[in-house]
Amino acid sequence: MSNTAGQVIRCKAAVAWEAGKPLVIEEVEVAPPQKMEVRLKILFASLCHTDVYFWEAKGQTPLFPRIFGHEAGGIVESVGEGVTDLQPGDHVLPMFTGECKECSHCKSEESNMCDLLRINTDRGAMLHDGQTRFYKNGQPIYHFLGTSTFSEYTVVHVGCVAKINPAAPLDKVCVLSCGISTGLGATLNVAKPKKGSTVAIFGLGAVGLAAAEGARISGASRIIGVDLNAGRFNDAKKFGVTEFVNPKDYDKPVQQVIAEMTGGGVDRSVECTGNVNAMISAFECVHDGWGVAVLVGVPNKDDAFKTHPVNLLNERTLKGTFFGNYKPRSDIPGVVEKYMNKELELEKFITHEVPFSEINKAFDYMLRGESLRCIIRMEG
Amino acid sequence: MSNTAGQVIRCKAAVAWEAGKPLVIEEVEVAPPQKMEVRLKILFASLCHTDVYFWEAKGQTPLFPRIFGHEAGGIVESVGEGVTDLQPGDHVLPMFTGECKECSHCKSEESNMCDLLRINTDRGAMLHDGQTRFYKNGQPIYHFLGTSTFSEYTVVHVGCVAKINPAAPLDKVCVLSCGISTGLGATLNVAKPKKGSTVAIFGLGAVGLAAAEGARISGASRIIGVDLNAGRFNDAKKFGVTEFVNPKDYDKPVQQVIAEMTGGGVDRSVECTGNVNAMISAFECVHDGWGVAVLVGVPNKDDAFKTHPVNLLNERTLKGTFFGNYKPRSDIPGVVEKYMNKELELEKFITHEVPFSEINKAFDYMLRGESLRCIIRMEG
Ligand SMILES: NC(=O)c1ccc[n+]([C@@H]2O[C@H](COP(=O)([O-])OP(=O)(O)OC[C@H]3O[C@@H](n4cnc5c(N)ncnc54)[C@H](O)[C@@H]3O)[C@@H](O)[C@H]2O)c1
Ligand SMILES: NC(=O)c1ccc[n+]([C@@H]2O[C@H](COP(=O)([O-])OP(=O)(O)OC[C@H]3O[C@@H](n4cnc5c(N)ncnc54)[C@H](O)[C@@H]3O)[C@@H](O)[C@H]2O)c1
Ligand SMILES: [Zn+2]
Ligand SMILES: [Zn+2]
Ligand SMILES: [Zn+2]
Ligand SMILES: [Zn+2]
Repeated sequence: MSNTAGQVIRCKAAVAWEAGKPLVIEEVEVAPPQKMEVRLKILFASLCHTDVYFWEAKGQTPLFPRIFGHEAGGIVESVGEGVTDLQPGDHVLPMFTGECKECSHCKSEESNMCDLLRINTDRGAMLHDGQTRFYKNGQPIYHFLGTSTFSEYTVVHVGCVAKINPAAPLDKVCVLSCGISTGLGATLNVAKPKKGSTVAIFGLGAVGLAAAEGARISGASRIIGVDLNAGRFNDAKKFGVTEFVNPKDYDKPVQQVIAEMTGGGVDRSVECTGNVNAMISAFECVHDGWGVAVLVGVPNKDDAFKTHPVNLLNERTLKGTFFGNYKPRSDIPGVVEKYMNKELELEKFITHEVPFSEINKAFDYMLRGESLRCIIRMEG
Repeated sequence: MSNTAGQVIRCKAAVAWEAGKPLVIEEVEVAPPQKMEVRLKILFASLCHTDVYFWEAKGQTPLFPRIFGHEAGGIVESVGEGVTDLQPGDHVLPMFTGECKECSHCKSEESNMCDLLRINTDRGAMLHDGQTRFYKNGQPIYHFLGTSTFSEYTVVHVGCVAKINPAAPLDKVCVLSCGISTGLGATLNVAKPKKGSTVAIFGLGAVGLAAAEGARISGASRIIGVDLNAGRFNDAKKFGVTEFVNPKDYDKPVQQVIAEMTGGGVDRSVECTGNVNAMISAFECVHDGWGVAVLVGVPNKDDAFKTHPVNLLNERTLKGTFFGNYKPRSDIPGVVEKYMNKELELEKFITHEVPFSEINKAFDYMLRGESLRCIIRMEG
């Protein structure tokens, strides 16, 4: 179909040559998609914390030069051998975690942790042949999360691509590739608050605010936002958060503060901080008899979740979730439809926008804690 | 109706005068039921570990003289003021935890942890007036769990009485008052294994075997029994346990042994030991993506449940249950019906039977680990 199919494409990409150094817009070569791969033209990307963490490479394995980016919207340019589900022109969201549709996880109704295509932060090459599809003057450039969306063209495994409604505006729905879906799904798919219930959200970053958006959609009567950074509270009002608790304002544990505010505890809590103490508080602040706590944040390697077993025996439930329990290919198109039907609001997550040439500004906004999501316009 | 209504009844009761000393069959006086109380004629009782723990009073607050017993079947002799749900002649099971039907827990579909009548192991008197209904020569004798069923007659709060099918044999269904329902409900109401799934049961005492019975009823394809005492394995075969693991036989953690046996972990696990290490193993041995672990055992005061949060984020669920999440008055009559319909087998739990006069033998059988349930015939 496209006249570039089967050809190497030369295009612009933002290359991270070194940890923590500004990305450089380079002309790179993008090889054609191989077996079960597709090549995408990226139209809009957005920046997520995970990109920043691996670019800083402080606690993470450094792998450079690398093309970051995993939240994006684009169009299929060409498809490799064996790809039957997608064709050039399809509107898609690339996904940092995939769905092979064959393994026991993909076949389970409950799991989205595909054995083959589950997130892998250390892999810098394609599964098929262990090679990269990006080159600069013959030098391979590593992939990130199998998506590498900070490039005008990228190559992705077909199992990591969600085909969406072509009418959906890609500059908005691109944020559904990762953080927003994670928080939203944590509430809608895992915590599942009933109408009228009380929900506590720990951590009011983009993920926590998306969890709050899920609570608003579910008809929660009280949404209690908990954050150590009072600066987050003002923004959070737009997301339906009705009350705020800053643990620093109290000399008793925040779980006790919340229990006192709610006559024994909230019906549901969603932890979106990555801090293990917040995880424990989020669990212990749910009501006995029926409370459900959901962990979303990614903890440190050596963290231990610790609680007295009686907190469990008193009929509390503790769950964790990955990507909000959404199956990337099967479920994300439906989340896009929620936006199209105006059930879900995305505009309020998008606080900034920059052209591709100014992508480093997006990093600055996030590092300064100013942005929720900054959209990167790939064209112009 | 009965000519004893409103009168003090003199009858035989097994009184525990001192911690750990054999019970003494005494003639006691049983006062008439007060407001919202009923007096029951007990026909059959059975002995549960909890009776033994509080009789030994090693880790528990001693309260003597006391009449123990909380698993039993009987008939309503008379009712106190305000009781409209029950009348003399009704066949009932007394319950160690109650259901007021008014509080937020009773009104919740999920909880059975009634605010008013939730288990209270330290209270030795009736809620209404803080007095006992048992006397021996004017000396009050304390109640246990609000049931004190090792007496020919006892007084119980109406909220702690389940009215059951009068056709049900009380010498069998009396075991549904506590441990058997606890284990059964942990599987059927909380773990909810699907047909064909794999289930691990930690601890093969009466509670664990009832959990296994629940797995059998659910159509589990593999039921893996885990116990430190290999002596439990032979009996467990009768309860549908298909495989056995003794953690002592391995030099790696039992969760790893189970993961290797099952290609990554079981679908469901139910912990019925009270040992916190078994709780952690029971959690960590469930499959990522969909595994659910249910804790039943009562831990020590200072125990801490400890796990890496990633075990949760990988989409495992951890829950605890109290009395198998059964609401005592609303749900237990239905469990009796399961027995009547031959869905549930109870005979295999009943390993011994003694006349009331030999009640101390029931303690011996349990202390020697010989019995699952010993029925105590109150008449004759
Ligand atoms: N499970 C998944 O699939 C998935 C996907 C994306 C992000 N995440 C994780 O979700 C978490 C949140 O992501 P984000 O982008 O919203 O991060 P963020 O840094 O923007 O927000 C986190 C918020 O938590 C607050 N916080 C930190 N410690 C706290 C504590 N002890 N008590 C209360 N508040 C506390 C911070 O002040 C901050 O406002 C991160 O751990 C991220 O790695 C998980
Ligand atoms: N939650 C409730 O409502 C409720 C009600 C009744 C009983 N219980 C509790 O359930 C538990 C079981 O009761 P039971 O009467 O069957 O007790 P039991 O003593 O007859 O059986 C417990 C079994 O667990 C085994 N065990 C102990 N530590 C173990 C370990 N680390 N790994 C594997 N196996 C181990 C023992 O060898 C024993 O066979 C107790 O803790 C009891 O207090 C809870
Ligand atoms: Zn898969
Ligand atoms: Zn992300
Ligand atoms: Zn109640
Ligand atoms: Zn008991």
